[in-house]
This record gives sequence, structure tokens and C-alpha cells, in this order.
Amino acid sequence: MAPQEFDTIAFRNALGSFTTGVTIITATAPDGTPVGLTANSFNSVSLEPPMVLWSLAKTSLSLDAFNEAIHWNVHVLSQDQQDLSNTFASRGENKFQGIALDKGISDAPLIPNCSARFQCKNIVTHDGGDHLIYIGEVLSFDQQTLPPLVFQQGQYAMTARKPWEGVALSSEPSSPQCSYNEDLLGYLLGRSHFQMLFRMRKVFDEQAHEDSHFFALSVLNIQSRLTLEQLNDHIEYTGHSLADSDIEFLINQDLIEILDDEHYQLTDHGRETSLVHIAQAKAIEEELIEKLGVGDVMALKLLLKRLITSTDPGLPDLWKTQEPK
Amino acid sequence: MAPQEFDTIAFRNALGSFTTGVTIITATAPDGTPVGLTANSFNSVSLEPPMVLWSLAKTSLSLDAFNEAIHWNVHVLSQDQQDLSNTFASRGENKFQGIALDKGISDAPLIPNCSARFQCKNIVTHDGGDHLIYIGEVLSFDQQTLPPLVFQQGQYAMTARKPWEGVALSSEPSSPQCSYNEDLLGYLLGRSHFQMLFRMRKVFDEQAHEDSHFFALSVLNIQSRLTLEQLNDHIEYTGHSLADSDIEFLINQDLIEILDDEHYQLTDHGRETSLVHIAQAKAIEEELIEKLGVGDVMALKLLLKRLITSTDPGLPDLWKTQEPK
Repeated sequence: MAPQEFDTIAFRNALGSFTTGVTIITATAPDGTPVGLTANSFNSVSLEPPMVLWSLAKTSLSLDAFNEAIHWNVHVLSQDQQDLSNTFASRGENKFQGIALDKGISDAPLIPNCSARFQCKNIVTHDGGDHLIYIGEVLSFDQQTLPPLVFQQGQYAMTARKPWEGVALSSEPSSPQCSYNEDLLGYLLGRSHFQMLFRMRKVFDEQAHEDSHFFALSVLNIQSRLTLEQLNDHIEYTGHSLADSDIEFLINQDLIEILDDEHYQLTDHGRETSLVHIAQAKAIEEELIEKLGVGDVMALKLLLKRLITSTDPGLPDLWKTQEPK
Repeated sequence: MAPQEFDTIAFRNALGSFTTGVTIITATAPDGTPVGLTANSFNSVSLEPPMVLWSLAKTSLSLDAFNEAIHWNVHVLSQDQQDLSNTFASRGENKFQGIALDKGISDAPLIPNCSARFQCKNIVTHDGGDHLIYIGEVLSFDQQTLPPLVFQQGQYAMTARKPWEGVALSSEPSSPQCSYNEDLLGYLLGRSHFQMLFRMRKVFDEQAHEDSHFFALSVLNIQSRLTLEQLNDHIEYTGHSLADSDIEFLINQDLIEILDDEHYQLTDHGRETSLVHIAQAKAIEEELIEKLGVGDVMALKLLLKRLITSTDPGLPDLWKTQEPK
């Protein structure tokens, strides 16, 4: 790996390897106009006295305002504030429109629902090439347990905590002769799914349901009127499918009923049963959020969705609005 | 959310909300000793001229060396360099032991296998409370496509890219009346697993295998000698289990054989068949790494392992060494 020739675009890309949070920095211009912009050039400097810094392009329209400002606030954005990040990264006006600002200790605007906020007094401004570096003393700060928004390689990201302790599934390291180990993605997905379903099964075992019945009731809960063939279109990729005997069983259990046109739908009892299943699934998820943290579960869901859209064998859209009968 | 009273520990925690990469900064002391330390206080300053900054505690043992150094190098660490990060975060000596340094443009040590590296010449040092701020001009840099190590809230982390485009599974937004939507974790796990298995099934359908046979062969591939009961202990949580008729089928297909003591093992043909399955699973995973990127797949695996250890119903250890017969 030989050092590259100097190239500004490549330099910017290389800087992008350094992951950062995303902040919005705000101040009030001398004429009372609130100014604010998105910056990822924030960093901590000192604990005692508490100091932070950030840098601003000399071409910024807000440069004069920040040079005049005595105070500025740093907002470390949360995962839910990506739109706000985009708004404040643009050159548009009225960026603060619709934001119910909190009351801070200075005149600098204070935006709510951030992961952390630092209310600062500017100490000194240093020259930094095409940027100015602002160093401020932190007069006040606060923090909320909201997963922070992350920026890496020119793109928003979310984080998954690496383990403090190992998350090894086996008590022994895999031997090199082993044809597959706990790192095989297919194994991890299967085991995750089946362990979650194992917890579900405690509920539907009591009702003598099989997995395929659970899947069928869940589909009919969303798509209220389907033929057996349509129902199986939603289910068959699981390796399960419903036979006539299953339909008979579900009708006998008063879970589904047949309409004139060979379409099936849930009975009231079927809908209640399905809602009990879904409530159980949600309870298991809540428990998992307790254990893993909301940030990790959000990241897991995002990655699973990306996997699903990448491997979709062409399943029908489960949530597509049905044409009225 | 009222601003908190000032408190250094709480301040440090609040600063931890701002996610950062992890760097190692190196220089050579006047006596020729290489020095280096882990820092997350790095940030970009200017593109033209190319400038970066970082800050160092005034209590650092390396302070004199850095104050004398004309050059220093910044290494943005990759996911695989967590141990290196820990080594350089300690006060130990011989931190560079065992590292085959690259040749840089200055006397500052240049560590290999990083996500990015910036070889810098110090321009100016500013006071920053209990730290010194070093601002340097970047003379040379390079970058590798290695997922970067991340630090957030006092803990190592990895990132999952947020989508440029949506990863919605449905063409329509879920209606509020909908009892569950594509955001239900159990749904996402099931669909991910079954879509991956769907791809696998193309291989084992040709051999008239059922899912349970695939699971059984995979288990016997690792645990080479099991009774039917032991085999089912590994499989039953999936809702599948092997009956005597399945065993008979697998024996007739020359995939498994029975030993004197009622234990089953793979035949040569069974082992080959299982290896074909695993090769297919690995090929699917490689394809997915192509599509999702190695960083996202690493993060997904980590999160799945965390989920599995959090929901383990007490499965036997698949990779535990068997006692010799």
C-alpha cells in the first residue's frame, strides 16, 4: 500500500473513514436571527475546564454570525433527527421553522430531542486553513438515552455495540478442521429465528397450532380475504404450506371461515387468536430491547430489511391494499 | 429536560454520545524512541490546505515527545485493530513490539492495515484546558476498504449503514390499524431466515431432502456420533425433529449409518452431501457480502449472536469437543 498522490477528493474520502457523530451548532446573529448548521467536525478538548471545539468553513453564510456570537450550542443528533441534519446541512432559510425550541442559558437556540447538548461560551477562534476552529467552554450540558446518529464514509449510519464480554455461542473455539462454525450467517439467522419462534410456540402450542397455522393466521390478519392459493403464495417460501386438511382444521377450530367465492378470512375468534400471537411477538421484542438496548435492535432491524430486500425471491407484498370486493 | 448541574463524570458521559472513530497517533521522540497513543479526539479541519487536528492530555507521558516532534502520523483503525487500540491506550512500554511498520515519508512510525492513515507535519499547537491541540498539515495519506472501528458511549462499536434509498418491504406505508407491520422483529427474522433457506433448498430439493434432514446432516457434520435423542436435542427447538422413519430414509440414502452403540454418524456420502450444503450457504453469504458490504454483514452477525445468547433456551453446545469413544 503505497501512499497516494495528493488529491482533494481522495483526501475527503479518506477523512470519511473516521466515523463521527452528527451535530447541529446554533447561535443568534447580532440582528436576532437564529443561525444553525450541521457539522461533524465537533470534538471534545478538555474535561477541566470543560471545553469542546468544532470548525466552520470560511465560506459559510453563517460565518459572520458565529464570529460575533458570544455563545453557541452544540446538539449531538439522535437517530431520529436525520431529517433535521439534512435541513441544517442545506443553505435554506427558515431552518428553525416548526421546531419548538427549549429555553437555554444563553441566546443561542436550543433544539429538543437530541442525544446530548452542550451550551457553550466561545473562548477563542483559531485559523484552520479553509476553516475556522471555534473553541468554547461548556457552561451547561444535558443528555438523553437516545441512540445517536452516526456519519461514516459520507453516509448516515447507526452503531451496534461491540461486546464487552464475548458473545461466543460455543464454550470452545472452533477447530480449523470444522467445516462450519458459529460465524456462518445462515446458521445465525436460523438459530435466531427458531429461538424467537420457540418462545412464540409456548403460546400457540396451547392451541394445538402448527407453525404453518400461525403463519396463515398472521397473513390473514393483514390480508383479510385470500384464496388458499393466494395464502400459500405468502407462505410457501418458508417450506410450509397449507393443505386442505389444514384449512379444515382451522375452520373446525372456528379460526377461519370460507366466503362464497372460495376466499378465506379470519373469524372473530381467529382474529383474537392472531392478535394474541402478535402481542406475544411484541412482548418478546420488548424484552429483547431491554436486554440489547434500543440502538442495537434498531440496527438489527435495518440490517435484516437490507438482507430481505437483497434476497427477496419475489414474494407478494403482504401489506398491499386489497382491492375492494 | 432541564440542563444538568455541572459534573465531570456526567460531562464525560455526555461527550460519549458523540460517536467517533478510533485513531492511533505516532511520532518519534528526539532519542529515537517511537511513541504512540490511542485518541478519539481526531478531526478534520481543512481540505485546502489539507489539515487535521487532535488533542493530547497534558498529563500524557508522550507529551514531550509530541512537543518536540516535527511529524506525526494519524492511523484510523479498522474493526480488526481493537487489540491494537487497547495496547496503545495503555501506559505500557514496547507498544510497537511485533508490528511490522511500513515505511513513511517522515520518521514517525507508520502502522499497517488501517482504514486510513494521514502523515502530517505539525503546524501549530494550541492550548486547550487540560489538553494540547495539535494542528497538522497532511503531507500524505492512504485508505483501505476496511470497516473502521468505532467508539460510542465509552464502548467499541461497529456501524450499519443507513439506507440511501428506503429498504421498505412494502410498497405502501402501513396503516395505523394494522396489527403488525414490517417492523416487527419476529417477522423480519423469520423472513430473513426463510429467504436464505429458500436459496439453500434449491440444492437439497434435488436430493429429496427435507429441512429436518438438512439440519440433521449439519449437526452430524460437527458432532460426529450421536444417538437419535442427542440429535433431536440439537434440532427440536426448530419445531422439526427426526422420527424413526427419517433415520430409515437417511440410512437408505446412504447418508448416515448406525454404529454398534445406537449412535449415528455420517457416511462418506453423507459428509460430502453436508459439505455441499455448507458450501452453498457460504456462497450465499459471499453474495450477500457483495451486496451489503462486509461491514454490514459483520454488524449483522454480531447482533444475531447477541440476540441468540439473550434468548438461548438452553441448547446443547454444538461445537463442544466430544469425548473420545
